[in-house]
Amino acid sequence: MSTTSAARPRSTASAAALTAGGSSAAGFDPSVGVARLIIQGADRPGIVAAVSAILAEHGANIVSLKQYSSDAVGGQFYQRTVFGLPDLQAARTALEADLDARLAHELGLSWTLNEATQRKRVAIFASQTDHCLLDLLWRHRRNELPMDVEMVVSNHAGLAQEVREFGIPYFHVPVTGDKREAEQEHLRLLSGKVDLVVLARYMQIISDDFLQQVGVPVINIHHSFLPAFIGAGPYQKAKNRGVKLIGATAHYVTEDLDEGPIIEQDVVRVSHNDTVQDLVQKGADIERLVLSRAVRWHCEDRVLRDGNQTVVFTP
Amino acid sequence: MSTTSAARPRSTASAAALTAGGSSAAGFDPSVGVARLIIQGADRPGIVAAVSAILAEHGANIVSLKQYSSDAVGGQFYQRTVFGLPDLQAARTALEADLDARLAHELGLSWTLNEATQRKRVAIFASQTDHCLLDLLWRHRRNELPMDVEMVVSNHAGLAQEVREFGIPYFHVPVTGDKREAEQEHLRLLSGKVDLVVLARYMQIISDDFLQQVGVPVINIHHSFLPAFIGAGPYQKAKNRGVKLIGATAHYVTEDLDEGPIIEQDVVRVSHNDTVQDLVQKGADIERLVLSRAVRWHCEDRVLRDGNQTVVFTP
Amino acid sequence: MSTTSAARPRSTASAAALTAGGSSAAGFDPSVGVARLIIQGADRPGIVAAVSAILAEHGANIVSLKQYSSDAVGGQFYQRTVFGLPDLQAARTALEADLDARLAHELGLSWTLNEATQRKRVAIFASQTDHCLLDLLWRHRRNELPMDVEMVVSNHAGLAQEVREFGIPYFHVPVTGDKREAEQEHLRLLSGKVDLVVLARYMQIISDDFLQQVGVPVINIHHSFLPAFIGAGPYQKAKNRGVKLIGATAHYVTEDLDEGPIIEQDVVRVSHNDTVQDLVQKGADIERLVLSRAVRWHCEDRVLRDGNQTVVFTP
Amino acid sequence: MSTTSAARPRSTASAAALTAGGSSAAGFDPSVGVARLIIQGADRPGIVAAVSAILAEHGANIVSLKQYSSDAVGGQFYQRTVFGLPDLQAARTALEADLDARLAHELGLSWTLNEATQRKRVAIFASQTDHCLLDLLWRHRRNELPMDVEMVVSNHAGLAQEVREFGIPYFHVPVTGDKREAEQEHLRLLSGKVDLVVLARYMQIISDDFLQQVGVPVINIHHSFLPAFIGAGPYQKAKNRGVKLIGATAHYVTEDLDEGPIIEQDVVRVSHNDTVQDLVQKGADIERLVLSRAVRWHCEDRVLRDGNQTVVFTP
Repeated sequence: MSTTSAARPRSTASAAALTAGGSSAAGFDPSVGVARLIIQGADRPGIVAAVSAILAEHGANIVSLKQYSSDAVGGQFYQRTVFGLPDLQAARTALEADLDARLAHELGLSWTLNEATQRKRVAIFASQTDHCLLDLLWRHRRNELPMDVEMVVSNHAGLAQEVREFGIPYFHVPVTGDKREAEQEHLRLLSGKVDLVVLARYMQIISDDFLQQVGVPVINIHHSFLPAFIGAGPYQKAKNRGVKLIGATAHYVTEDLDEGPIIEQDVVRVSHNDTVQDLVQKGADIERLVLSRAVRWHCEDRVLRDGNQTVVFTP
Repeated sequence: MSTTSAARPRSTASAAALTAGGSSAAGFDPSVGVARLIIQGADRPGIVAAVSAILAEHGANIVSLKQYSSDAVGGQFYQRTVFGLPDLQAARTALEADLDARLAHELGLSWTLNEATQRKRVAIFASQTDHCLLDLLWRHRRNELPMDVEMVVSNHAGLAQEVREFGIPYFHVPVTGDKREAEQEHLRLLSGKVDLVVLARYMQIISDDFLQQVGVPVINIHHSFLPAFIGAGPYQKAKNRGVKLIGATAHYVTEDLDEGPIIEQDVVRVSHNDTVQDLVQKGADIERLVLSRAVRWHCEDRVLRDGNQTVVFTP
Repeated sequence: MSTTSAARPRSTASAAALTAGGSSAAGFDPSVGVARLIIQGADRPGIVAAVSAILAEHGANIVSLKQYSSDAVGGQFYQRTVFGLPDLQAARTALEADLDARLAHELGLSWTLNEATQRKRVAIFASQTDHCLLDLLWRHRRNELPMDVEMVVSNHAGLAQEVREFGIPYFHVPVTGDKREAEQEHLRLLSGKVDLVVLARYMQIISDDFLQQVGVPVINIHHSFLPAFIGAGPYQKAKNRGVKLIGATAHYVTEDLDEGPIIEQDVVRVSHNDTVQDLVQKGADIERLVLSRAVRWHCEDRVLRDGNQTVVFTP
Repeated sequence: MSTTSAARPRSTASAAALTAGGSSAAGFDPSVGVARLIIQGADRPGIVAAVSAILAEHGANIVSLKQYSSDAVGGQFYQRTVFGLPDLQAARTALEADLDARLAHELGLSWTLNEATQRKRVAIFASQTDHCLLDLLWRHRRNELPMDVEMVVSNHAGLAQEVREFGIPYFHVPVTGDKREAEQEHLRLLSGKVDLVVLARYMQIISDDFLQQVGVPVINIHHSFLPAFIGAGPYQKAKNRGVKLIGATAHYVTEDLDEGPIIEQDVVRVSHNDTVQDLVQKGADIERLVLSRAVRWHCEDRVLRDGNQTVVFTP
């Protein structure tokens, strides 16, 4: 059985669930007992029936189900199911055994099971630009993002004070000379503590080694233009070309740098009135909007990766 | 068992399916064998499992499934399932028997089954304003609307020539003096021939009698403003008030006139630059956009009615 | 001569300009010497020529000019002109004398002249809901709003700590029993210190007396729906009605409560998936977006009031 | 004196105005006497004053004025002025002499003067794809586009019948072997008859020779993606890459093929649900929307070209 790479591995999820269960035992949290089951793999007739039968046998009530097949015949199958189960903690082990036996072994599907109360633990990487970082922290404080921000990591010290006002640890890891030293420090800080890394305008290239060792998804944000402008000074080039739109793309980071699976894109309208500085400002605005959507959807288990594409079950 | 009022009654659907089956028997149509199953009713655990089990037993492959429950416990259940079944014509009778027995009788749910090749037959009512009528006809000719336009009915003769260029029958039914005479003529024209009536800026009030006798859903479009402007000359009032948005609402017609279940709404931005005439033009543009979406979604069985609300499974 | 009610009276502007001039004398501010001239009144041929001739005579270079006439003949005239003038401080008195003589006296037009460096001084009123208040403060800190926030006034103490973290004075003025006492305290706090009052979800009715005495524009934000829902619990009513859009309106406050001149409106899409709580959240999101736009445009002298309408020269 | 390349040369405009004058002499047309004056060139203080003084001296009343300078000092100047003048036909010669003397000769500015009643004459080029062509014809019939469609030219015969139903001449000019023969035929058809050529998905490359000889602006539409997809099958590539937006760009054609000055761009949201065929359909939808806006704005003299950029004074 393999789990989807965009979602937390099942075993980790189970461990975290026990922790989450402690606080939810009090019974005051209305979302206790709600879980999300993510399934994907090669399509064949009967998968939805098999999944819903398993859930029904365990007494679960399906609250929301979104399913997508890439082809009528012979395509890929993707499903996100939210269900309620009053004694989820007690029932979980048996339910997982059934999912393993009947979905993974019999049907060859990947699955992950995440409890709604069990928020993803996130590290945010930033450099000197603050717009994406502060936007995430501010939305988080407004309860718009179902995540726990475990730490902010930066190659600069400049944003430390602002981040600490949010009550979040700030680690300054300078990147000078041999980048591998900094990455080793990053891995040490992150190890076992986070489920997601968000690059919020972190202006250092991530090495393949780091990606392989970090073991959790990494989301990045970058600007996008039509047409594309290669190289330095893209906003000046966009101004010279008189573009009417500028955009941003949030994607998972792979070894292909800015070419990983796209999670979300959006654009903002610009005109001849906009100076290069205005374009930079509007670019920043659309970057933080797109990044916050991508992070939210990931944290709600709405993004299923498949090769270089994503299936996003938007709200 | 009761069927959803927004969808064609099952018995009619079956009859029409036999007709559609004739042409689909040739096997050249790639959509032959694709059907949409719409289900709604009081929620309880296990419905998705029951539905998908029935489909799996009959050899159907689920292509797309959207499900929604209005509450985690004790709410209403809505599901739209698109599935493929190679010998749909042959299998249909047995499948319907199962759906009746296990969904309608055992679980108390309403259901309808529509084949994708079986397009809804539509009558469009218009008066003197052509923007909504022509927009529907034009989109229809561009294959954007999966429907058959059986006729256009108008209380004016002015649009006859333009409609007939589309190869569609145009019936001029004047409304003068006793409106009941015109409505009797409408019922005679529509009887058994259509699955949907669209009021494309038809400027006559529909009587409750007509609604009860016509036996198919009726969709209407009207302008919407924030704030609302009651009475005559709404665009002049909107201009006087300096509104920045004007909108349109498409809804099913009920006895409460413009208060039926909303299918779709949208707005367009206006400014002080816009004259009253500009507001009317922009209002017309947003009306035809909203109406075409509502008609398309209805024809694709995406709109489920429940009391005065709708659940719309948008694409 | 009368000045536009939406812009700071000229005499106040002049006084403030002297203060602003002190800091701009250093010459490091690139916007020194840029001013905005707002003109409105009964239209007649030759106004643009008269205005631009005056500016040219004083050596000003027009950077941006937007002009609007409500009718080809006999309508109202509105113009916003941004110009650069190297020695603005020195030239201002003579320029103002000319504007008074040739625009106000000869042509009967209102005018105001504001220097770009002279930011409007703003008081924000709030109650217990923080989304609009914090959004303004946060955008202000990001330099998105060209204003100085002089104080926050609230009838509750709950938001004091968060506001003070922004370095802004917080005045708790309880409203109990006789509302006139609180309003007298408000007037005392505001007197001579602000150019604009923003009601950021301030849940107290403003009296006509207050409006007449405060002497500066007051901007309010409220939710908007299509159709309108009168009375208590509008979000529950919107949910029951199954609306597909909810919106917000920012307007100047007049004696007609929520009926003052509209500055900006916008909507957000909702669906059956949204609970009443979701509608409230999305309503809050669109409220803060719309309010921040209205405040920004007012602070940039882009909003010209005329009776119950506005002319907004958007960027 | 040089005129802007995006607008009809002045002399041609004058000739056409005489023709238009004949019908306007009756005085029933409310737009008679309304003209648009477009000015651009190197900025210097006093241009707006000079222009408005000239207009005032000739008794013109400015209805709308939009002005833009690319820099506070030393940039480029652009202005679009709409004015009313009761006896425009009689006054035109003297007004033009003044514009020539004081704007062109003294200030070195380009200018064009177009009467609102004098609609641009347009040729539409198409191939086999009809969506952009028919959209333009349909909007034209609905009076949304202030132009006269003089002819449709195509390298295929397939769309002849549909075009002729609109009452518009259709010229089939096959492009085989030596493309120069076809282009000579194009030039013969267009010579002196049109003010604009619109390439509505015309799938032949336009030669530099043609561009130089045709003597009127040429507008093209093409799809746009983020990121860009070079070469054949862009929609399949966009599907493989999982993009969330696809777009379209309308631009003036220059010798640099798809790299000419951009007039308008827009995007439409797509998802994993969209097949390649869906992407093509949505691409077609956004192409016709963007093209119709570009054509409308050009025909209303809202688009000023400057090198490889445009200044678009949108409504």
